[in-house]
Amino acid sequence: MSSLQQVNPRVRGIRASPHRFLQRLSADIQRHITQGVQKPFQEVIDISSGDPQYAGMKPISFVRQVLAVCLLPDLLHDENLPLDARLRAQRLLQCCDGESVGSYTASAGLCLVQQTIAEFITRRDAGVPSYSSNIYIPSGSQRALMVVIKLLARGDGEMRTGVLMPLPCPHTLPMLLDEAGVKLVPYHLREDRGWAVDLDELKAALKMAGGRCEPRAIYISNPGNPTGHVQDRNSIEKVIQFAEDERLFLLVDEVYQDSVFEQDREFISYKRVLFEMGPEYSETVELASFHSLSNSIMGECGLRAGYVELVNVDPAVMLFAETLLCIDISTPVTGQLALELMVNPPKLGDLSYNTYMQEVLFNQATLTENAQRLWESLNGLPGMSCQPAMGGIYVYPRLNMPPGMVDQAEMLGMEPDVLYCQRLLEEEGVLVGAGCENGQEDRNYHLRLCVLVPSPTLQEAVKRLTSFHLRLLARFPQ
Amino acid sequence: MSSLQQVNPRVRGIRASPHRFLQRLSADIQRHITQGVQKPFQEVIDISSGDPQYAGMKPISFVRQVLAVCLLPDLLHDENLPLDARLRAQRLLQCCDGESVGSYTASAGLCLVQQTIAEFITRRDAGVPSYSSNIYIPSGSQRALMVVIKLLARGDGEMRTGVLMPLPCPHTLPMLLDEAGVKLVPYHLREDRGWAVDLDELKAALKMAGGRCEPRAIYISNPGNPTGHVQDRNSIEKVIQFAEDERLFLLVDEVYQDSVFEQDREFISYKRVLFEMGPEYSETVELASFHSLSNSIMGECGLRAGYVELVNVDPAVMLFAETLLCIDISTPVTGQLALELMVNPPKLGDLSYNTYMQEVLFNQATLTENAQRLWESLNGLPGMSCQPAMGGIYVYPRLNMPPGMVDQAEMLGMEPDVLYCQRLLEEEGVLVGAGCENGQEDRNYHLRLCVLVPSPTLQEAVKRLTSFHLRLLARFPQ
Repeated sequence: MSSLQQVNPRVRGIRASPHRFLQRLSADIQRHITQGVQKPFQEVIDISSGDPQYAGMKPISFVRQVLAVCLLPDLLHDENLPLDARLRAQRLLQCCDGESVGSYTASAGLCLVQQTIAEFITRRDAGVPSYSSNIYIPSGSQRALMVVIKLLARGDGEMRTGVLMPLPCPHTLPMLLDEAGVKLVPYHLREDRGWAVDLDELKAALKMAGGRCEPRAIYISNPGNPTGHVQDRNSIEKVIQFAEDERLFLLVDEVYQDSVFEQDREFISYKRVLFEMGPEYSETVELASFHSLSNSIMGECGLRAGYVELVNVDPAVMLFAETLLCIDISTPVTGQLALELMVNPPKLGDLSYNTYMQEVLFNQATLTENAQRLWESLNGLPGMSCQPAMGGIYVYPRLNMPPGMVDQAEMLGMEPDVLYCQRLLEEEGVLVGAGCENGQEDRNYHLRLCVLVPSPTLQEAVKRLTSFHLRLLARFPQ
Repeated sequence: MSSLQQVNPRVRGIRASPHRFLQRLSADIQRHITQGVQKPFQEVIDISSGDPQYAGMKPISFVRQVLAVCLLPDLLHDENLPLDARLRAQRLLQCCDGESVGSYTASAGLCLVQQTIAEFITRRDAGVPSYSSNIYIPSGSQRALMVVIKLLARGDGEMRTGVLMPLPCPHTLPMLLDEAGVKLVPYHLREDRGWAVDLDELKAALKMAGGRCEPRAIYISNPGNPTGHVQDRNSIEKVIQFAEDERLFLLVDEVYQDSVFEQDREFISYKRVLFEMGPEYSETVELASFHSLSNSIMGECGLRAGYVELVNVDPAVMLFAETLLCIDISTPVTGQLALELMVNPPKLGDLSYNTYMQEVLFNQATLTENAQRLWESLNGLPGMSCQPAMGGIYVYPRLNMPPGMVDQAEMLGMEPDVLYCQRLLEEEGVLVGAGCENGQEDRNYHLRLCVLVPSPTLQEAVKRLTSFHLRLLARFPQ
C-alpha cells in the first residue's frame, strides 16, 4: 500500500466530513490562544456536536459515584459516598466476571444489564414485553447501527442494498452507510411542517431508487437529529404501514427519547406503536431501536456504550449480529454499567434520589429554555428562519445565504455553509455545524446548533453569532 | 431480511468459533451450579482466554486510583488516595475536553496520550524516534488491526488481498480477517524449534497463494500468541527482509512485549530492528505495530483501548485510517487514560512506585512460575508434549489424540480437540482452548492454556486436567 491508489476503494469512497476540517481549525485556533496569540475572543465555543460535557454540562453524580467505586472497590467503605451508590456498585461488580470491570464480558453485553434494559423498555412501553435476549450492547448506538446495517448489506449494482435516510440526517450517518457499502436513498423531511416525516416523500424516494438499488431498510431519527421534530402516533403508524407494505427493515434512532420539551408532546416508541397496531404488524415488521449513553440526561459520550433492541428478527440472523460483535470482543465495561444506571436510576425514597432528580430537572430545564431562547434569537435575525424544536438537542435554522458569499465559496471550492462556519469560527470563535454535513442539498443552507450547553455559554455564542451574522450581511448586501 | 439467506454473504462467511460454543456451555454449567445442581466441582475454572482479571489476577492499584479520581473529581481531595495518583488524575483531566471523561475525544485519540505513547516507544527502542502523529488509539488492538486490514482490503478473485498469517495464530484472528473480506494465507510455525518463524515456510506460503489471491501483508505475533515463542533479532531481520523483497505490509502484534520470561531472551521490537537495518529498510517497509491494555501487566481487558503505530505509511493513506476511526466517533476515554498510565507508570521516588513495582513483579513471577510448572506437568502426562514458552501468556501443548476419540468426534461431527475440551469442561469444570481455533490443521491437535492466573487456580486446573486426561487414556487405550 505504498500509495493512495492502493487503499481499499470502498474506504476511499467514504465521503469527506467538513466537520473534521472545522474541528481541526477550531483546535488550531484554541492552541494559538493558549500560546498567547491575541484574538477578539478568549476561547472557542463549540456547539456543533452533541457533546454536552465538553460544553460544560455536569455529569449525573450518582453515575460517577457508582462507577468510581466499581473501578476502585476500596471505596465501598468510603462513607463520604452515599450508601445506595456503594451498594449499587457492589451489585454491579458481582455481575462482572472476576468481580472486576477489567474482565471481558460476553459479546452481546452483561446479562444483568441486558435484563435491566428489557425491564426499562417494558415499563416505558406500557407493558409491551421486551426480552433480554433481544438486547445487544455495543460501544455506542452508532456501532449498534453499523452491526445491523452490515447484516443487511449485500448485492451489487441494482441489487445492492439501499437504505432510506432522511434529509437532513444525523451528520455521522452518511459516512457510516458509505463504510457499510450500502446505497443511500434520501427522503425529504418537510421543513414547512416542522420537519415532519411525510409519506409522499417516502414513496417518492422509493420510486427514485428503482433500478438503482434494492431498498431493504428505512432509517428514522425520532426525536429528530438535527431537526428537533418529534413524531406523533399517527405519523409513526404511517411509517410502520409503509415499512410493512414495502418490506423494509425499520432502523429507529431513539437516542433522544428523554428530551421532548414541547408541551403536550410526548415520546412514543416505534415498538410500542408497532405492537399496538396488532399482530398483522407486531409479528412481521422487523425493527431495530437504538439508544445510547450519549443521550441528553446522561451525556456520557466518552464512556461509549449503547444498545439496540431487535424485534421480529430471525434467531438464526441474530446469531450473526453476535458474530459481528464477537469480533469487537467486548464493549467497555464501565460504559455497560453506566447504561444500567441510565435505565435504572435512583428511585423515590433512595438516598440519592433527590440529588439525581435535581440534576435531571436542571438539564431538562436548560435544554427547554435554551431551545426556546435560541429559536427566538435566530428568528429575530434577518436572513435566518428556524422551525421550533420539539425535542432532541439541536436547533437547525435555515440560512438565507447572501449570493456574494455563495460566489466566494464557489471560487474557493467550498460549500457556502462550510465557509460561513469557517468565518464565524475565525472571527468570533464559535463552532457550529454546517447543514451540508446533514445531507442538505444544493442552495439549501442550514446550521446545526446544540442547545444542551450551559445557558451562559449559549448566550455568549448567540451574541457572537449575531454580531458576525449582521457584519456578514453588511459585507454582502442582498 | 426475513431469513438467513438474506444476510450479507460476507457476514455469513465468517467462520464459526468453537470457543463460543464452549463458553456458552461453561456459562450453562456455572448457572446450574448456582441453581444447586450437584457437580463433582464447585466452580468452572476458565483458562481458555487471556482475561487475567476474570481468572482472579488483581489490577494495578495506581491505575484504578487515578481512573476513579478521573471519574469522580471530588476524590481529588480524598487524602486516603496517594497524592501522586490524585495529581496524575488532575493532569489527565486537564487534557480531556470539558475536563471530563464524559466528552468525546478526537478520533485518533487524546493528544497527550498519543504523545506519551510516542515517548514510551522512543525510550523502548533505544532512541529510534516515534512521532505522536503516527499513533492511533482505537478501542483495543483488535480494532486497530481491523482498521489497517480494511485499508489493505481490495480486489476480487486472484487480485483479492491476501494476508499471511501464522499457524497457530491468535484465536480471534481468522474471524477478523473473514469480516474484512481478505484471504487467509497460512504459514506454518516450526513446533519442533519451539514454534519459530521459518523463512522457508513463509516462502512456501507465498508460493501456495500464487494465482489464488494477491498477498499484500504479513501478520506476525511476537511474543507469540498462543505459542509463547519470542523472536530474536536475527529472526526478525529475516522477516523484515522477506517483507521488503515481497513488498508486504508488516502487521506486528506486540501486545505481550512486557511478558518475556525466558532467561537471556528479551523483547526487541520490529520497528527498532527495522531502523537498525538501515535506510534501505527503515525508509521503505510499511509497518504497523499493535499494543493493548489487555497485556500481561495491566490486564485491563474490560477498559478497551489499544494503540497502533504506523511507520512508512503515506500520509494520504493515514487520513483514511482516521476516517475509519471517525465512524467509531471516539475511543472510551477511561481506556485511553489507562493507556497513558501503562506507558508512563510511577517512577522511582514517586509515592506509588513501590506498590506499583511489587504488583508488577508479583504478576511477572506468577507468569514465569506458572509457565514453568505447567510445562513440566503437561510434559509429564502420557500423550502430551509441550514446547517451553519463552513469553506471552499461553502454553500450547500438543495432544496425541486417542484414535477412538477421533472416531467418536467424527461420528458427532465435531473437531476432536473441541470434543476433548467439552468433556474436560463437563467432567472436571475446566475450560481450555481447542487448538483448531488457532488454525491448526487436521489431525494435529493442541490445547491453549492461559498461565496469567493465580497460582492456586492453575494448580487446581492442572490437577483436574490430569485426572481427566488419565481417565480418558484408560477409556481409549492407544
